Amino acid sequence: MNTATALTHEPPCTTALRGEVAVALPMRHAGVQGVNLRYELQGPAGAPVVLVAGGISAHRHVSASAEFPEKGWANALVANGRTLDPARVRVLAFDYVAADGRLDVPVDTADQADAVALLLDALGIERLQAFVGYSYGAMVGLQFAARHPSRLRHLVAVSGAHRPHPYACAWRALQRRAVALGQLQCADAAGLALARQFAMLSYRTPEEFGERFDAAPEIVNGRVRCAAEDYLDAAGAQYVARTPVTAFLRLSESIDLHRIDPAAVQVPVTVVAVEGDRLVPLSDSVNLVEGLAGRGQLRVLRSPYGHDAFLKETDRIDLILAAVLRGNGAAA
Amino acid sequence: MNTATALTHEPPCTTALRGEVAVALPMRHAGVQGVNLRYELQGPAGAPVVLVAGGISAHRHVSASAEFPEKGWANALVANGRTLDPARVRVLAFDYVAADGRLDVPVDTADQADAVALLLDALGIERLQAFVGYSYGAMVGLQFAARHPSRLRHLVAVSGAHRPHPYACAWRALQRRAVALGQLQCADAAGLALARQFAMLSYRTPEEFGERFDAAPEIVNGRVRCAAEDYLDAAGAQYVARTPVTAFLRLSESIDLHRIDPAAVQVPVTVVAVEGDRLVPLSDSVNLVEGLAGRGQLRVLRSPYGHDAFLKETDRIDLILAAVLRGNGAAA
Repeated sequence: MNTATALTHEPPCTTALRGEVAVALPMRHAGVQGVNLRYELQGPAGAPVVLVAGGISAHRHVSASAEFPEKGWANALVANGRTLDPARVRVLAFDYVAADGRLDVPVDTADQADAVALLLDALGIERLQAFVGYSYGAMVGLQFAARHPSRLRHLVAVSGAHRPHPYACAWRALQRRAVALGQLQCADAAGLALARQFAMLSYRTPEEFGERFDAAPEIVNGRVRCAAEDYLDAAGAQYVARTPVTAFLRLSESIDLHRIDPAAVQVPVTVVAVEGDRLVPLSDSVNLVEGLAGRGQLRVLRSPYGHDAFLKETDRIDLILAAVLRGNGAAA
Repeated sequence: MNTATALTHEPPCTTALRGEVAVALPMRHAGVQGVNLRYELQGPAGAPVVLVAGGISAHRHVSASAEFPEKGWANALVANGRTLDPARVRVLAFDYVAADGRLDVPVDTADQADAVALLLDALGIERLQAFVGYSYGAMVGLQFAARHPSRLRHLVAVSGAHRPHPYACAWRALQRRAVALGQLQCADAAGLALARQFAMLSYRTPEEFGERFDAAPEIVNGRVRCAAEDYLDAAGAQYVARTPVTAFLRLSESIDLHRIDPAAVQVPVTVVAVEGDRLVPLSDSVNLVEGLAGRGQLRVLRSPYGHDAFLKETDRIDLILAAVLRGNGAAA
């Protein structure tokens, strides 16, 4: 059943639309599952299509538009005057499989990549000008490039590699244990908040914390409270309000399940690494580019925002996207 | 009441002895508290005394002896042929105030330093040849040097500085939240185990995890299980078996309460920093040495063991101790 009615029923002047496509998805660890692929497509008909995929908490609403004015998760990158200018490029994004919390099975990055191919079929898009993936999205992009090479011209893989690093896996495994500890007594929200707070430490850097949270701790009700705890409280609460526990667990696991042989990727890939990223060490990005042989090129940023640089260093990321995408005609 | 009967009642050939001293300790945040200071002293009478103090989970049993043959926590550093050779040096160590879990108040590193002075009084030790502190012990050593400068000749501060780094504070605050989440439903052991597992990630490095836990994850009972999880399970269980929850909470807080002005330290200090330490950034060690002006010297190690290098790179640590202590006559 294709429920992508938005595509055909919106008035022609509309530049952003949303829809949902029901597909039967053969999954690597869970057989064939019926899933709804929720997407958003912004930009003029006929323009080249760039798919943008973010971390596990990203979603289909990448940037604000007249139709959907709320702020998107990559609002500063998909905007007028940027390389990903929705006046000149069609930007496609989707909610990850399992992001709605209804699918409680192991999810592989290969499953997400196959879901993208089914979505492109449903939308009548033969080929992406580029797949811009960040974090989990970079992993999905590598799978997509390996499994559906005829469906994209270029992959930009930011802060994600051919494997999760074993240290980062351990960090995520403990986050999932925090959720499990909360679930033991139906304190699901408390467990998920703690997991998110630990995740925040992996996304950011000591440099940033040193600048922001240098105040001495206080003793409150006989307990020590550190300067960063207000920030961490807010980060946990904000995440819990929008994230089903099952979605977090299955997508967190999905990062750890990810493995791909770089030699299986036969399209051009720009790998963007961030020096100081505490989840994706530079050495893994270098190994990825080596495995890609002549098909890969490496760009390295240094940022106090670590793993989150894609969302924070938007001017520098845009320069990289310009070099890559304008070079191959995406936004010429 | 001085219960240090071991000192006088042991036969003279004994080279290791244990005792307990009851003192009234004026505490910075909790008034005067009665505490028992449990110590161990190993080495020949009349030899110079070196106090060795470790991380918050260290204790008075530093190394094996004929009298106490179980392995100590710094067994490879306090041994025949080492700079800290118990045939030539008296090695003193103590259980930290609050380590028994009976004192449920905020504990400052200044309190620990004052406890050391009271212990020296009780033992009739006028002056330490050196105070060798690692991690929390380095913080306590800095306080001791600032508050009781006449009681030591030299401080060796390894992997600890004049302040905890704000990022490390946040990491520990979240560990304490894991304990609190467990306590919500009387799953104290589960909470403490999770806290310890998160702490292990801060003590070690991605390099080590990359070498040891590179295997792909497995799907066990429908859930993803990472390669490091067996190791983390063991680390958690081992810690829970020997650590009261209250002791962990109060000593973890104590690290975060620590602050000292390096200018207040007027004895010679050797600061040992580990490049790659995820808790104590090199920049904080450099700032400490700068604040010590001519009284401080910096030694930098690079180690895949990060914060735990003191316990793992024992040959290199011993070389540093030799240069420092033999240079000032401690073990000549």
